[in-house]
Amino acid sequence: MAALAKFRPVDSGQHDKDELREIVRERSFRFGRYTLSSGIESDIYFNMKPTMMVARGAQLAALEFLKIVEQVKAEYVGGLEMGAVPVIGSMAAVSSMMNKPINTIFVRKVPKAHGTRDVIEGLGPKEDLEGKVVLIVDDVATSGKSILKAIEEVRRVGGIVGDAACLVDRDEGATALLAQHGVTLHSVLHASEFVERH
Amino acid sequence: MAALAKFRPVDSGQHDKDELREIVRERSFRFGRYTLSSGIESDIYFNMKPTMMVARGAQLAALEFLKIVEQVKAEYVGGLEMGAVPVIGSMAAVSSMMNKPINTIFVRKVPKAHGTRDVIEGLGPKEDLEGKVVLIVDDVATSGKSILKAIEEVRRVGGIVGDAACLVDRDEGATALLAQHGVTLHSVLHASEFVERH
Repeated sequence: MAALAKFRPVDSGQHDKDELREIVRERSFRFGRYTLSSGIESDIYFNMKPTMMVARGAQLAALEFLKIVEQVKAEYVGGLEMGAVPVIGSMAAVSSMMNKPINTIFVRKVPKAHGTRDVIEGLGPKEDLEGKVVLIVDDVATSGKSILKAIEEVRRVGGIVGDAACLVDRDEGATALLAQHGVTLHSVLHASEFVERH
Repeated sequence: MAALAKFRPVDSGQHDKDELREIVRERSFRFGRYTLSSGIESDIYFNMKPTMMVARGAQLAALEFLKIVEQVKAEYVGGLEMGAVPVIGSMAAVSSMMNKPINTIFVRKVPKAHGTRDVIEGLGPKEDLEGKVVLIVDDVATSGKSILKAIEEVRRVGGIVGDAACLVDRDEGATALLAQHGVTLHSVLHASEFVERH
């Protein structure tokens, strides 16, 4: 692999978001009868893994979230396993390649049964979140409860959380719930952008 | 964020591996009494999340694995949740930025309880692994059983697996176990590189 391989030019404007929307439409958006993690039944479903795991989708999703990192001046980015972990891994590497390194963590739903038994993963031995500004991200926001769980764990260890972000907002209560907890939700895309055109 | 931000030059030779080794030494390598996921007790432990989640560590780990992707001509990269997921997310985005896109998947230990209930995550609706060459990666290799589980799931859906890779090889049986199953293990680093100098 060449030392400084030719990097694909990145248009960090509307073009990127349009391309990301089409990747989501093709690989992640589905009609059909689904039970969401919240237990709610729904006619539409966003499985965001196929978007976050395909190379271009991973890059574009990371770039969209990194814009929000800059906007809110976050020092860390974190999210709840499992939904947020692929894009957080992408953000860490992309931020380093763009010389604007952001460090990342993820929050386990249940502490690991072996090894270090941490709830918050990714911090080095001499590192903590005390007083650090943390942006919480997730792939999809529905009720906002998953995002809130991550926020509460990060606040429990002293992290400052005033902002959260999602790739697709189903507009089903997350903004209001998070606002009650002093958090502004930034949504890259909205479910309505997919449902209308279907 | 600038359209084509100045990318940090990447020396993809020995320098990168040396830097990655130091990040692992500082953030991931620990002495103490630990029970590994395999149930074995050990005096040394590698919690690789702090290496994979820090920006430079994420980039360097992705670059090391992408060299192996090229070497074995893999069409996909996959691994078992949870250990492999951050670095797989990094690989997807970095490969896109370097214009050598590699698509990625991960294997769930247990199918998801809701939504699509997939075991292999990341494939688009019209996508499958039938006849595709898949490199299986993990953060640490001990017995090799976690890697083997991912290999078996990928082979079950028609994927071709002849190679696997790990960031740190504890040299405790993985190479032999995987060889019995027709898989060559590529190890970026070995536990011995950390234990001797301690």
